[in-house]
Amino acid sequence: MQEQSTFTIAVFPGDGIGSEITPITLTILDKVCEQIGIKCEYKVLDAGAAHYAEHGVSLPEDAMNIAKSADAILLACMGMPSIRYPDGREIAPQLELRETLDLYAGVRPVKTLKGLPLPLGDDRAQALDFVLIRESTEGLFASRENGKIINNERAEDTQVITRKGSERVFNFACKMAQRRKSKGYEGRVTCVDKANVLGSFYFFRQVFDEVAKPYDDIIADHIYVDAAALQLVRQPWIFDVMVTENMFGDILSDLGAGLMGGMGMAPSADIGDEHAVFQPCHGSAPDIVGQGKANPTAMFLSAAMMLDWLGDKHDVPAACEAAKRLNEAVEKAYESGELRPFEFGGSHGTDDIFNKISKLLDAS
Amino acid sequence: MQEQSTFTIAVFPGDGIGSEITPITLTILDKVCEQIGIKCEYKVLDAGAAHYAEHGVSLPEDAMNIAKSADAILLACMGMPSIRYPDGREIAPQLELRETLDLYAGVRPVKTLKGLPLPLGDDRAQALDFVLIRESTEGLFASRENGKIINNERAEDTQVITRKGSERVFNFACKMAQRRKSKGYEGRVTCVDKANVLGSFYFFRQVFDEVAKPYDDIIADHIYVDAAALQLVRQPWIFDVMVTENMFGDILSDLGAGLMGGMGMAPSADIGDEHAVFQPCHGSAPDIVGQGKANPTAMFLSAAMMLDWLGDKHDVPAACEAAKRLNEAVEKAYESGELRPFEFGGSHGTDDIFNKISKLLDAS
Ligand SMILES: CC(C)[C@H](C(=O)O)[C@@H](O)C(=O)O
Ligand SMILES: CC(C)[C@H](C(=O)O)[C@@H](O)C(=O)O
Repeated sequence: MQEQSTFTIAVFPGDGIGSEITPITLTILDKVCEQIGIKCEYKVLDAGAAHYAEHGVSLPEDAMNIAKSADAILLACMGMPSIRYPDGREIAPQLELRETLDLYAGVRPVKTLKGLPLPLGDDRAQALDFVLIRESTEGLFASRENGKIINNERAEDTQVITRKGSERVFNFACKMAQRRKSKGYEGRVTCVDKANVLGSFYFFRQVFDEVAKPYDDIIADHIYVDAAALQLVRQPWIFDVMVTENMFGDILSDLGAGLMGGMGMAPSADIGDEHAVFQPCHGSAPDIVGQGKANPTAMFLSAAMMLDWLGDKHDVPAACEAAKRLNEAVEKAYESGELRPFEFGGSHGTDDIFNKISKLLDAS
Repeated sequence: MQEQSTFTIAVFPGDGIGSEITPITLTILDKVCEQIGIKCEYKVLDAGAAHYAEHGVSLPEDAMNIAKSADAILLACMGMPSIRYPDGREIAPQLELRETLDLYAGVRPVKTLKGLPLPLGDDRAQALDFVLIRESTEGLFASRENGKIINNERAEDTQVITRKGSERVFNFACKMAQRRKSKGYEGRVTCVDKANVLGSFYFFRQVFDEVAKPYDDIIADHIYVDAAALQLVRQPWIFDVMVTENMFGDILSDLGAGLMGGMGMAPSADIGDEHAVFQPCHGSAPDIVGQGKANPTAMFLSAAMMLDWLGDKHDVPAACEAAKRLNEAVEKAYESGELRPFEFGGSHGTDDIFNKISKLLDAS
């Protein structure tokens, strides 16, 4: 580490609205870093569906190598419904990143912002603050390129749950519950499975119980995935940290994004022992490209998650401080209820949101 | 058929609160049938977790045979977390019924009742009326007894999607959309899958497109399962008929029950070409057994679905008329907002709900 901490960030603007929200995210990052006396250096890399259409490869080896050597990876969005691999699958290099870089912990915070109209009517649902951890290297997704179609009559995909893969993500979740407990949260981790019906989930739950046992300062419990979906609608405030299999996590985290008012507000991180990718939950939104309507908030919040992770990992408290400032500026921007992105029925687009948050950072 | 139509109904009170809600459901059924001039004869059968604990078998062959020869099967709830098969799976004979009787179409209506506090704030969410069809004989559940655990290190379950299994459930869904269209609904069927990532779902979607094509009077479209979970929270009123794989259907239908205010309000039917089981979505609720708190509404509504199905199948319009009367009585019971079951924060239990609906039927 130099005297002034400098982090190298691999940046993938990706497809669609990615090129509209990425530059301003870097501007915001620069601003908050400068204020706090740290620095990010960006290596902007090309990958995704458009890249595949032009070059026949969705994630070039060069880019992958640079990403690997960076301190963190910031990704906007990748994929276009109209561009696909020959077998019909969508171009989703984020899945390759998760697998290749062993990013086993998909962190999907469900934290609502004040000042926005949210779907659930209950007061308690206006201040949600829990985290879903999605195992991101195995589960049903392990079958991604291994599925079988037999005689055009029968298709199979196999869900794989390993002890190793489960242990590491459960440890991650338990540690997160501990850290949250020290900050005043309940300190509870809930394993979401379908152990009543499927052997692999029964195994998943057993490993969970083994891993959670020594963490005797936190509460560990279970819920079936169907009941979890119900409770996320009925009383999502009961959750603290949830941890689940890849496919279930995909479904429940989008449900969680719904509780926050949509994908435009939902940040995420895919974290491994060495590497991490930070990315808004939304897709490339081809329907609104070029209209100035893309909501950059989720990418700003993802950038904040990145700063926080970098600060923790490299023991640079200033980076965590920068994350906090950025989160606060985003919260403040919406608080009064005036700022209202398009998907909330408002008329504020990319620039409005950027300007508002940028000004709040200047004033902070 | 005799001059007065008489239907033979196999009834499984099952476990837990089953014995509290079943007798009153039969009383209600008798009342509405008598009013309309039809008759149900019941064969009450024993099966479930308690039966397994006592006799070592969860679904006796005798009971199964009687159920097979009945015109319809009415089931309250089965399973107890504390009683399990030696391999840890829960006792859930309803899964065996679905498989053995080839009940491929799990019909889960999401129809809200007026007068109850519902989770979503938007006005449009107070009048939801769509149907989720859950394929109920294959998908990930096909692995139910076939999962592998290898060296206590790795566990696998295989999702199976067959052309035959998919075709029949898609035809069912398309026909339902047609019937709904004739009643003023949009006439749209949405296939929910993860075709962007998994081969079996790509296959599922292809078969859907083939099956839906000749139904040129309805709209057929697709949504990814994660996006579906999001939309079910953000704007569930956009759906008409949804159709999906078994495991996805399990998750999304509980989410749908959440939108109706919980499992106490959610009826279901598992329908095949020969047989059908009608069952509230809720479980046996051991925590409230014996307290008079069990909400019988979902079982009443399931009984109404049964009458409607019997009427259609056997061409007995009176049975459909009885179903309509029962549905209307349930709607009317809640309309004024006075009747409030426990799970809605109220203090009305099994008897209150039964009495209210029963009186409304008398007056109708
Ligand atoms: C784009 C898609 C392949 C991806 C996934 O399913 O993981 C996305 O939905 C996500 O949640 O990151
Ligand atoms: C009890 C359980 C096995 C069952 C299922 O998963 O199908 C239930 O959740 C349902 O939806 O009917």
